[in-house]
Amino acid sequence: MKINGIHQRTVWVAQDGVTVEILDQTKLPFEVEIIQLTSMKLAATAIREMWVRGAPLIGAVAAYGMALGMREDPSNEHLKTCYEVLIATRPTAINLKWALDRTLAVLEKTDIEQREQIAYQLAAEIADEDVRLCESIGEHGLEIIKAIASKKPAGSTVNILTHCNAGWLATVDWGTAISPIYKAHEAGINVHVWVDETRPRNQGLLTAFELGSHGVPHTLIADNAGGHLMQHGEVDLCIVGTDRTTAKGDVCNKIGTYLKALAAYDNNVPFYVALPSPTIDWTVFDGVKEIPIEQRTGDEQSHVIGIDPNGQLSWVNTAPRGTECGNYAFDVTPAKYVTGLITERGVCLATEDGLAEMFADLKHPELA
Amino acid sequence: MKINGIHQRTVWVAQDGVTVEILDQTKLPFEVEIIQLTSMKLAATAIREMWVRGAPLIGAVAAYGMALGMREDPSNEHLKTCYEVLIATRPTAINLKWALDRTLAVLEKTDIEQREQIAYQLAAEIADEDVRLCESIGEHGLEIIKAIASKKPAGSTVNILTHCNAGWLATVDWGTAISPIYKAHEAGINVHVWVDETRPRNQGLLTAFELGSHGVPHTLIADNAGGHLMQHGEVDLCIVGTDRTTAKGDVCNKIGTYLKALAAYDNNVPFYVALPSPTIDWTVFDGVKEIPIEQRTGDEQSHVIGIDPNGQLSWVNTAPRGTECGNYAFDVTPAKYVTGLITERGVCLATEDGLAEMFADLKHPELA
Repeated sequence: MKINGIHQRTVWVAQDGVTVEILDQTKLPFEVEIIQLTSMKLAATAIREMWVRGAPLIGAVAAYGMALGMREDPSNEHLKTCYEVLIATRPTAINLKWALDRTLAVLEKTDIEQREQIAYQLAAEIADEDVRLCESIGEHGLEIIKAIASKKPAGSTVNILTHCNAGWLATVDWGTAISPIYKAHEAGINVHVWVDETRPRNQGLLTAFELGSHGVPHTLIADNAGGHLMQHGEVDLCIVGTDRTTAKGDVCNKIGTYLKALAAYDNNVPFYVALPSPTIDWTVFDGVKEIPIEQRTGDEQSHVIGIDPNGQLSWVNTAPRGTECGNYAFDVTPAKYVTGLITERGVCLATEDGLAEMFADLKHPELA
Repeated sequence: MKINGIHQRTVWVAQDGVTVEILDQTKLPFEVEIIQLTSMKLAATAIREMWVRGAPLIGAVAAYGMALGMREDPSNEHLKTCYEVLIATRPTAINLKWALDRTLAVLEKTDIEQREQIAYQLAAEIADEDVRLCESIGEHGLEIIKAIASKKPAGSTVNILTHCNAGWLATVDWGTAISPIYKAHEAGINVHVWVDETRPRNQGLLTAFELGSHGVPHTLIADNAGGHLMQHGEVDLCIVGTDRTTAKGDVCNKIGTYLKALAAYDNNVPFYVALPSPTIDWTVFDGVKEIPIEQRTGDEQSHVIGIDPNGQLSWVNTAPRGTECGNYAFDVTPAKYVTGLITERGVCLATEDGLAEMFADLKHPELA
């Protein structure tokens, strides 16, 4: 989508055909800066330190990390090392494993001298596929928004609540949860987005930034506010993304998603989760019991980044001296609270049958 | 309770017997500063600008505001003006109206030349009563914590989640929701408190500060984290405060309380609300429909206060340029999600019958 009127992706190969460039998402939404990734280890750092974030984007950067690694040394030993270094960067996101497994499987069968070229090609394919998946999600989600709009007086606003950033900045382009909103906005529907701040890392600011850049009306709110808004009929629909979806439709997403799903359920507000199919983990059934939840440093809770009184990008430490901070990155929303899953193939129920019906070939690739 | 080992209240009369002193809660938890209130209008400003906050403390400061007003001019006309100025400071807190109504009723019947003295006396009574109420709440709440501790292996930790600051800083002393925790800590029970940050105004930092000052183990977490912790058995009990409780037991408290109550309900975690009886509004039955929710400036959402890299108290603006921010101060938790109400008289069900049985004399003062 666009920043300052210029179309941009979140990861791409520089003009030298080798260097991988990314938007520095630790500086966004305050500064738009590009980082050059020149080595596999730097790509791993980019993922681990969250210079890039969002499950689909992490997958694409990991694939480019493999390409950078093959350029350094295409040996079998280094291929294994690259895989191990990159997979260890973030424990929860399934796309990371998906992209790396796919790349590894191809490269293992590729002659050593061809590995660099094939790896770059594969990373580009993974990135392009993500763009197509996300745009399809937008088209299917648009139908849900259209149906809600059609039940309201003509021209009235459809209020959509989202949590975290599942916009184009979390993918290669379009986004997942926000893709239907861009499509609705382009279709002339009056959409307004309630943007959860998403503490502790404030990814909602990225959502506010990208919606603002694209001209979509929105209001930034505390994570605490959504329940109140739903009680008072101010939310027509929730759409969130997911880092991992179980075979039964449980959704692992940014911490706090579960609370919004509970409030939506309590107030009969439809709660949709948008996801590209690589996010589905067919090996996991009970999300709460089986998915390990990443715990990150307490500094991310205590230190808040923004523009200081002098107009400079800075931070303040909000915690009283000596306070211990907890930092849980994700939570799991049980499938029973999810109205439906918006995928690149269409909308399905968040159930084992719903998923199996839409993705039989992915669930049982041996039969496909 | 104690700061730096010295026992302190949140509002008191200075040695001159006239000036009202408060802790500046806009500087807490970063700096401990005292503000002198020398006029009724300054007392009103203190409430409106949240130099003091917390329903019981607001009531006490309003009563002292009346005393300052009577010192300025004890006429009937100024008495009415003081009442009107003070009642207009915050729309939601019922204690404010309770304290002012009580003071007004007495002063109207008091000779003009005695009004100043009686007003100071009344304010001191209101403050002392609050301390007694809060300590009683602590004693009744302690029994709940003891019962939970008795079901766990001896010496194990009882994990309690709280939202906002309903500690002694929100009252005159002891606090409401935190009072049982202080009592349990003093009784030798191993308590650990999950402290919600409580965006947008971060009152959880006050809770972390006062627990830390008193030596009670605690962990500061994002408002988003509580649901995840409850799913994983990390919360034995929730206790929150309330700004207003309806005659049927709905609870109006800091925005986000409702979301925690939903999560507690979904995970069979007991969810208690601690309140002194003046917080009960016998005229309101349906909290969601009837209680007006204060909307505050968006700057409180975008601007976060803390200690900057130079060690100075400062702020950062977290919102992308031009972002509209919503700021809803409270929400309403329907009574069905509340396990019980911890009051100064004991614990009752959050139902019309439960409240009416415990407070028949307050519900029907004409019969008392």
